[in-house]
Order: sequence, then C-alpha cells, then structure tokens
Amino acid sequence: MTSLSALLDGTYSLPACNNTALAAAQQRQNQLTKPQGSLGRLEELALWMAGWQGTERPTLDAGNCLIFAGNHGITARGISAFPADVTAQMVANFTYGGAAINQLCDTAGLTLSVTPLMLDTPTADFSAGPAMSHDDVLVAFQAGMDAIPETCDYLVFGEMGIGNTTSAAALCAALFGGHGADWAGRGTGLDDAALAAKAAIIDEALIRHGRIFDSPQALLAAYGGRELAAIAGGVLAARARRIPVMLDGYICCAAAACLTLLDTAALEHCQISHLSAEQAHGRLSDALGKTPLLSLNMRLGEASGGAVATLLVRAALATHNGMASFAEAGVSGG
Amino acid sequence: MTSLSALLDGTYSLPACNNTALAAAQQRQNQLTKPQGSLGRLEELALWMAGWQGTERPTLDAGNCLIFAGNHGITARGISAFPADVTAQMVANFTYGGAAINQLCDTAGLTLSVTPLMLDTPTADFSAGPAMSHDDVLVAFQAGMDAIPETCDYLVFGEMGIGNTTSAAALCAALFGGHGADWAGRGTGLDDAALAAKAAIIDEALIRHGRIFDSPQALLAAYGGRELAAIAGGVLAARARRIPVMLDGYICCAAAACLTLLDTAALEHCQISHLSAEQAHGRLSDALGKTPLLSLNMRLGEASGGAVATLLVRAALATHNGMASFAEAGVSGG
Repeated sequence: MTSLSALLDGTYSLPACNNTALAAAQQRQNQLTKPQGSLGRLEELALWMAGWQGTERPTLDAGNCLIFAGNHGITARGISAFPADVTAQMVANFTYGGAAINQLCDTAGLTLSVTPLMLDTPTADFSAGPAMSHDDVLVAFQAGMDAIPETCDYLVFGEMGIGNTTSAAALCAALFGGHGADWAGRGTGLDDAALAAKAAIIDEALIRHGRIFDSPQALLAAYGGRELAAIAGGVLAARARRIPVMLDGYICCAAAACLTLLDTAALEHCQISHLSAEQAHGRLSDALGKTPLLSLNMRLGEASGGAVATLLVRAALATHNGMASFAEAGVSGG
Repeated sequence: MTSLSALLDGTYSLPACNNTALAAAQQRQNQLTKPQGSLGRLEELALWMAGWQGTERPTLDAGNCLIFAGNHGITARGISAFPADVTAQMVANFTYGGAAINQLCDTAGLTLSVTPLMLDTPTADFSAGPAMSHDDVLVAFQAGMDAIPETCDYLVFGEMGIGNTTSAAALCAALFGGHGADWAGRGTGLDDAALAAKAAIIDEALIRHGRIFDSPQALLAAYGGRELAAIAGGVLAARARRIPVMLDGYICCAAAACLTLLDTAALEHCQISHLSAEQAHGRLSDALGKTPLLSLNMRLGEASGGAVATLLVRAALATHNGMASFAEAGVSGG
C-alpha cells in the first residue's frame, strides 16, 4: 500500500480509471437485451465499477462500509439539537447492532466497521482557534487509510459526530466561496434562530482562519474534525487502490471535497449516493460536478444514504453481469 | 376474493388504509434511534406498507412482480423503433431468465410471473377504430386479477408490448386533457419526426373516440391495450385485498390511472417507483398526485423500475423492524 506521506507529498499521481475495461463494459452493455441506455444510471454505475475495478465484469463481493466518529468543541456554542454525548452513545448503538446503518448494511450486503476517533478529546472550538493540530489531522488520515481491509472491491464512507455539519459547512465555504448562511443547514433539527446563529459562527471562523489553504491537511486542521479527516484519508487511499467509493451525504462529501486541494480530479472514483435534506448538499454536489443517485429527503448521516445507494449498485451489476445478449436470446434489434 | 363484476359495478367501496396500524407504525418510528423524520421517504414507505398491510410491523416475505404482455395494432402506423415481434421474443427472454427484470427480481427478492395476453391477436389500430371490445377488456382485467397469488404481501406491476407507449399517451390525454404532443414520448428511441407523427396519430384517435368515458373498461376498449387492462384489473384486485402496489413507469401508471374513473382515490395503495425518461411521466405523476421514488433516467419498462424501487422498500422495512429504540439503546434525545 502506498504510504500516507507519499500520497500527500504532491508528486504522487493518482491512478486513472481503466479505459480499456470501461470500453469493454460499454460494449457488453450495448449487446444486452434492452434498448441502449434504457437502464439509465444503472448502466452508468456498472461502467463506473468496471472502469475503477479494471474489469469488464465488476463485482461487489467484498463491499465495506466505514463509519468514523468524532467529537467537536464547536458544540459548546450550541449549534446542535442533540447533546455531544450522543456521538459515543450512537457508536455503542452501531456496535450493538441497533442503528439504521446496521440494518441497511445487512440489506445491502456490506460489512460495517466503525472507528471512533478520540471521542474523549473533542476537537477545539474552531470559531476561537484551529480545530486541531497538523499532527492530529495526519493521525486521523492514517486511521481512515487503515480502516480499509486488504480485500475490498467497493467502499461506502460515512460519519457520526454531533456538531459536524458546522465543520462541514465551514470547509465548503472555504473551498467554494460564499458565507455561512450559504452552507449551514438544520443538521438534526435546528430552528430558524439557531440556524442563523450557526451561520454567524461559521462566518466568524471564516474571518479567523481565512479561505486560502494549500493542502487538505491545513484546511482540516482549521475547521475539523477528526472523522472528516479520516474520511478524506480513506477516500484518498481508496483512489490509490482504484476502489470505487460511494459517498454518503453532506458531511461525507465535504470531507472528501478537501482532497480537491491536492488534485482537482481527486474524486473521479466517487459517486454521491443521495441528495441529503441538508440544504447546502445540492450546492456542494454541483461544486463537485456530480449528481446524487437518490433524493429521498434523508438526513441521518452514519453512511445511511451510501448503504441505500449500494442497492442500486447491486441492481446495476446484476443486470450488467446477468442479462442475455440480443444474440443469445434471439431478440431482434439492439 | 371479491369478483371482478362486484369490483366494477360501482357500488363496491374500496377498502381504506388501516389507520390504527398506521398510527402504531408512526409511534414506533418516533422511538427509533434517529432524529425523527431523518430517514425521509424510507419512513414514508414503512408507514405505507404498515397502513395497507394493517400491521405495525409490515413484511416483504411474499413479494410478486407481475408482468403482462400484449401486442398492438397501432404499430402498423410505425410508432415504434422496434418491430412488434420483439414482444414475444422478450416474453421468451423473461422465461429463459435473460432479461433485466429477471436479474432485478433476483436482487430484490421478488417472484416473477409473466402473463402473455393473446400475443398472436394484437389489438386493433385505435386510430381507425376501437382497440378492443368490452369483453376483451374484461378478459384482460380478469387475467390481471388471476395473476395475483393467494399468498402475497406486496406487488410490482409491469408490462411488455411494442407500441404501448402510444396507447398509454392516448389514455392520459383522454383522462387528463392536453394533446398528443403533451403525452407522447420517444418510447424505445424515436427521432423527432417519428415523435411528431406519433403525437399526430394520438390526436386523430382523440377526435375519433373522444375523452368522455364513464368507466375504465370503456376507456381501455377505445385506446387499448390488453396488458394495460390487465394491470388495471390487477391493481384494482390488489386494492380489494389491501396489498401495497409498486407501479413501474409511464405505461404502468397510465394503465392504473384508468381506475380513477371508477374512484378518484383508487390508487391510494400505490407508489410510483421511478420517474421514467419517457417525457410525460412527470406530468402523469403530478396528475396522480404522487412523487416517484427514484429518478434514474430509466425507460425500459418490464417492471424494471418497480423492482429497483422494491430495494428501497426492503431498506425501509429493515430499518423500521430492526432498529433499536432510544430507550433500548440508551441514547439521549428522541
């Protein structure tokens, strides 16, 4: 495996999609018993899996769902409807098997792993100073890399962290411009006044830390949090291994977006699973040039949208690998 | 089972959703370890299944996917990109297991049944006269009813019939107003000129048969086709048994829409699985007051969108039935 420092040193070039495999998969799609293109985005998903796995017949035999959890000092400013204790309680719920993501991973045939990141040591309040040190970021990046099993053909990333939509919004504002109000949303359920206060806190932080960063590490050190850095590290490591990645909602996409500071094409191996109900997720998806696969008004996080979208990938591969060709089935046309 | 004639005689009142079960399921959702409403439309699907199955804990243990196939005399007017022979060839492909729907039913855990309806006797060219007799319609209705197994807790309906988007468009224009151009689409792949010709043929037929019909049977006799009548019969029979129904795309929805002549609330037990790429499907969904669950640019028919959306129902039930409550998991809030 390529080391973290090699991936981040600016000279490593990220591998591209395998165009030979992609062309072979497209050729196969064109021969299947359906009007060409009639399976819409299911065809796109089959080709995406083929290109990144480097095979005409992609698989989803070793799919993993990786959740990272972190705590956030910014919660001291009252930007969440739930208390910070809920992060650790939900990690326990993931372990116990009682959360939404447990049921969704079972349904989607994904192996779930949960990585809590120093839950007893929240990041600092980023409206008052940097969320964490450069070393903290590297430790979290490495945790993201290390969470990917040796055998893995597909990845879903997700997060848990009370307060982390505030970090996500600040990262987006720094990366793509705009103010706190453009990127802040209601999270788990803020009212109008609390939403306005959240936006103002992000604007404070933008003035303190600015918007100019020369690396994902520097950006994440300013605005946090640990679980977002872990997702960035994991998504980058997946790219180095050409593993297709399904991103969950707003926070997960914001974390991955930090990698565009390293390489503007850093997320070519990623799909956005769903358009979250968090109001700025559409803006973020547009900024990343990607169209979410689902739009189900979900806003839970914990990789839930990613797991549901994995069902579409299963449908895509079942048709791609299992359908008869026009010639095999004796059907006219094609 | 309630007989077809009883269902159609105008005095039978369709059963409603079980509001006690619905309320119990809502109460359960509110206690699960997630912010209320954060699973979005997955929660809506769980409640829909609960209300129609009449239980707090709905199941998808005996889900059936019913495809009906028919041939259309209107194909003589050149309104399809594929030859009419393809209907029978695709029915053979369904039986052989090589079509998209075979793979999608496997993925979604649905039992597939295919009912070909007099493929050697296409309906008449409805631009020149009625597509079929009143008795033909009743025979097809009955075939739709009979295709539902005795043990069944969930249904997907779909169709195969070269030329049937033209019938569907004419049915929609008669039911909801507008001209051929408002309801005609490219089907399996018409170019601009062929699309305009298709719209003109529908306008001819609308002049011939008019838009005023006092029953689904009369409407379907005018514009066809057999597989559309079978879907209407099946959706009606499902309602009498309170079985939740997942509709496929444009044609399937147009067939079901005919039932609104019997009762404006006839489709309360139905969801629309996906927004088809067929251009008028959004207009039709709006007319039915329903929002499609998926939008994947699919346009294959054969229940493919219905089978894919069934994956969302599975995800919905897995979370609804499997998640821990706040109290069980020791999580704060809720």
